[in-house]
Amino acid sequence: MSSTRTVATLLVQCPDRKGLIATLAQLLYNHGANILQAQQHTESSEQMFFQRIRFDMAELDISRQALQDLLSIECERYKMRWRISYSDRPKRLAIFVSKFEHCLHDLLLRHRLGEFDCELSMVISNHPDLEPVASQFGVPFHVFPITSETKAEQEKKEISFLEQEKVDLIVLARYMQILSDRFLSRFPERIINIHHSFLPAFSGARPYHQAHEQGVKLIGATAHYATSELDEGPIIAQDVVACSHRDTVQDLVRKGRDVERMVLARAVSWHVDDRVLVYGRRTIAF
Amino acid sequence: MSSTRTVATLLVQCPDRKGLIATLAQLLYNHGANILQAQQHTESSEQMFFQRIRFDMAELDISRQALQDLLSIECERYKMRWRISYSDRPKRLAIFVSKFEHCLHDLLLRHRLGEFDCELSMVISNHPDLEPVASQFGVPFHVFPITSETKAEQEKKEISFLEQEKVDLIVLARYMQILSDRFLSRFPERIINIHHSFLPAFSGARPYHQAHEQGVKLIGATAHYATSELDEGPIIAQDVVACSHRDTVQDLVRKGRDVERMVLARAVSWHVDDRVLVYGRRTIAF
Amino acid sequence: MSSTRTVATLLVQCPDRKGLIATLAQLLYNHGANILQAQQHTESSEQMFFQRIRFDMAELDISRQALQDLLSIECERYKMRWRISYSDRPKRLAIFVSKFEHCLHDLLLRHRLGEFDCELSMVISNHPDLEPVASQFGVPFHVFPITSETKAEQEKKEISFLEQEKVDLIVLARYMQILSDRFLSRFPERIINIHHSFLPAFSGARPYHQAHEQGVKLIGATAHYATSELDEGPIIAQDVVACSHRDTVQDLVRKGRDVERMVLARAVSWHVDDRVLVYGRRTIAF
Amino acid sequence: MSSTRTVATLLVQCPDRKGLIATLAQLLYNHGANILQAQQHTESSEQMFFQRIRFDMAELDISRQALQDLLSIECERYKMRWRISYSDRPKRLAIFVSKFEHCLHDLLLRHRLGEFDCELSMVISNHPDLEPVASQFGVPFHVFPITSETKAEQEKKEISFLEQEKVDLIVLARYMQILSDRFLSRFPERIINIHHSFLPAFSGARPYHQAHEQGVKLIGATAHYATSELDEGPIIAQDVVACSHRDTVQDLVRKGRDVERMVLARAVSWHVDDRVLVYGRRTIAF
Repeated sequence: MSSTRTVATLLVQCPDRKGLIATLAQLLYNHGANILQAQQHTESSEQMFFQRIRFDMAELDISRQALQDLLSIECERYKMRWRISYSDRPKRLAIFVSKFEHCLHDLLLRHRLGEFDCELSMVISNHPDLEPVASQFGVPFHVFPITSETKAEQEKKEISFLEQEKVDLIVLARYMQILSDRFLSRFPERIINIHHSFLPAFSGARPYHQAHEQGVKLIGATAHYATSELDEGPIIAQDVVACSHRDTVQDLVRKGRDVERMVLARAVSWHVDDRVLVYGRRTIAF
Repeated sequence: MSSTRTVATLLVQCPDRKGLIATLAQLLYNHGANILQAQQHTESSEQMFFQRIRFDMAELDISRQALQDLLSIECERYKMRWRISYSDRPKRLAIFVSKFEHCLHDLLLRHRLGEFDCELSMVISNHPDLEPVASQFGVPFHVFPITSETKAEQEKKEISFLEQEKVDLIVLARYMQILSDRFLSRFPERIINIHHSFLPAFSGARPYHQAHEQGVKLIGATAHYATSELDEGPIIAQDVVACSHRDTVQDLVRKGRDVERMVLARAVSWHVDDRVLVYGRRTIAF
Repeated sequence: MSSTRTVATLLVQCPDRKGLIATLAQLLYNHGANILQAQQHTESSEQMFFQRIRFDMAELDISRQALQDLLSIECERYKMRWRISYSDRPKRLAIFVSKFEHCLHDLLLRHRLGEFDCELSMVISNHPDLEPVASQFGVPFHVFPITSETKAEQEKKEISFLEQEKVDLIVLARYMQILSDRFLSRFPERIINIHHSFLPAFSGARPYHQAHEQGVKLIGATAHYATSELDEGPIIAQDVVACSHRDTVQDLVRKGRDVERMVLARAVSWHVDDRVLVYGRRTIAF
Repeated sequence: MSSTRTVATLLVQCPDRKGLIATLAQLLYNHGANILQAQQHTESSEQMFFQRIRFDMAELDISRQALQDLLSIECERYKMRWRISYSDRPKRLAIFVSKFEHCLHDLLLRHRLGEFDCELSMVISNHPDLEPVASQFGVPFHVFPITSETKAEQEKKEISFLEQEKVDLIVLARYMQILSDRFLSRFPERIINIHHSFLPAFSGARPYHQAHEQGVKLIGATAHYATSELDEGPIIAQDVVACSHRDTVQDLVRKGRDVERMVLARAVSWHVDDRVLVYGRRTIAF
């Protein structure tokens, strides 16, 4: 894991046809790349092909630009959607929070412990409350208060700021504002939300109250890409924890915190490692 | 577990007030009962009290009838709902199936291995297909074919037959017919259904197809008491299993079979052991 | 849960005999206590009885001392071991750490979020490194450096300090020193350790390395009371997480951190709530 | 899954070097194979490369023998260990049992439900007891009684019979005899055993009793390839289930049955699908 070598990660998806794997493997091999990991998946019902390739750049005999040009040519031929990232250009992450601190804390600590291969560029909040948490970890904290009147304007400022700071990934760590379609469309498949239920059960507000009323025996959490349909974006990770008649709503909230942070951390880690591809309502998580 | 001694199980529920535990413990002690297990729960928001007491009858110095009369007096005083069962009068169970054999097989095998403290009195089906399975385990198999025309009449016959055979518990082991309200009302809190999803997600038909379309990362199963609201009865047990983009609908069906049978077996075992109390839409499962 | 009322928790264990439950329930009822929860367990092979009773003190008509005197009389009669605690006298907890911060962080955050019903009196370490973490949460941090020469003396100082500060529970949150028998014997059943494996597998040093070499498919963590036999004390809580051939030792360490902190938090919470009784090498965790 | 097309599965392992993936992908592509799935793993500490490729044979333009000859040439060049299997030549499986029926039952039922892509050629036992179970599923049952005197001779007969019947995989479904080294060496990496504990904890006899004495809070099961070191062969699959002070040894045995059969079924399914590679004491399970 730790290393100074540069590793590239290539993600592709396209209609399936023969020779895809050979073509890409050969192209990389021809130019000195050493494949470290390769995963491939074919969605058989729709004949769609998905691949993730991680390769060592140490002995690459052409420039990144030249490599990308070659990939572009192949990808056009095969009608591939593709993207590539490099370990020496780590993603820049922004965390959005409101007043709940458990997910924020968890992400900050994991980042400090080296669990996420990215830069934690900032924390953004609509409330000033959690500033001390961010500052303990040395991460800049910015407040953008939101009211129904100021929302449009504040989002505009946030977008400019995020773009100026070259943020690649936004993590909604129990952020209690609904983002506008305008905002969402600026960061497609780059905003991860944590919902505190096992979706599609208990979407919307107060899922732990709903769960308690229905007497379910498990509660869950779901990390998904945020889309304009609330709580309906492609699911990245989910998990559950057992509960029983002994648990009050407060107990569910407490137990839920553990699942929320585990699931959110898993989703962030997978996204940062370029393991996630979106296909319609679903994700491929290599 | 194995023993020739007779054990009684008393279940009570009533509005909470002081002295309930002392009253029942004293009553049993005064007449020679030895309490083996006692669990108590108070639903604090509604101030409702629930208790399960298992006691050894070996040195009971009064008759069962006399004991029940004494309990009746106390229970009237405290407005308790109560019921008692005796280990020498095991419950009689009927399994309803259609064409899927995995849950049936599982229940029959567990019964033979001694996991359920009950009599397996019969298997009822609307199709003849699974007769060989029942007969391998030496359990009577009865076919009641159902069409929309004959449904009312066939259910009537089933009810008579079940009552004549003194069946205490009906287990719908992937029975593909919807029971009428008339039928359901004859066996309140005594019909357990297995639904092949983590309710309330994916109620209704084809839950594995729904789960696949939505790209969830866990699939589940739910055992609940059947009520007139389809897939909405009080939940007894639930569990899930991880799935991924690699799983086709057929894989979900296969993985689901494991969860279905585990969850159904758990619910049946708890009911048979008188561990389950229904309270509104929820269950207390001691 | 939230309330200003005082709640007492009584734990008892003794040889089983008839009338135990009735005696205690009656005694409490006679003096105005309202039982909120009661759990009872009989270890059938050894005929040992265990009970936990939580009761509301609001309408108790005698003093605590008088109640304890009455309990003493009954407990002598039945040869009970017993202890009682009161919600208005929360336990005082000390956390011991070395250089790993994840468990410390987790405990401090949970305490701040109100998950533990206790006072976090101090953090003790053999290294100064984690002082900033403790201070962020406003908890006193004390350094007792340990070398093989100073160990005996330093432990003596620690013991005095802990006793002076009336510490009830010591949590070894990845504390990398082995405590002497002398130290351990001063806090019997009041020191909780987290071991980073599923004991009894991989006791001793470097369990994640051992796990990786053996190619196990799950890694775990175990919270147990520390005794003079290393990694052999009574187990309070355990859990595991799946791993695979894709996981390096570093990945196991990372995954393990999540299990360690979950399991340790569970054990601390149960101990603080007086839910744990020790019986030989085992625990009863109500 | 269901299909009449022929699919080949190629497993390779060799020292890592550049171009491995490209070479194999190109070779297959050049001859009309369509890769359906490919997984690759590099064991970074030892620089070992592992790959599994499933490909459609429908448009292969050379014979199987020719393909294998080409693979041999490449594999020699790269010092690969490799094997290939074809979906129209399903593996032949033999189940060994003694008197416990739960694993046998489970495997037979799963096979009938189509979960294993193999032929269930026979059940072999040292006792006649389970003959009715095998015959219910229409599978031949052969008894080879074993005493310490006859063991060597009986194993010899078993080996001849298994070889004559072209058995590819032997599953020890709670077979209560220890196989000799002679026997084991005839079927290297082709004998799967289920051990009723989470190895390496509780190897040897009576693991549930050991688990109960130590008061563990989880019990497990381990499926592994049988080697001459008892309970030490490469682990294929493991799982656990929660237990508590309420569980007697008998309860652990009951709960354990569920884990045993789940874990054994998983291991058998993975082996049958050629997803498992052995490397030293460990397995790669794609």
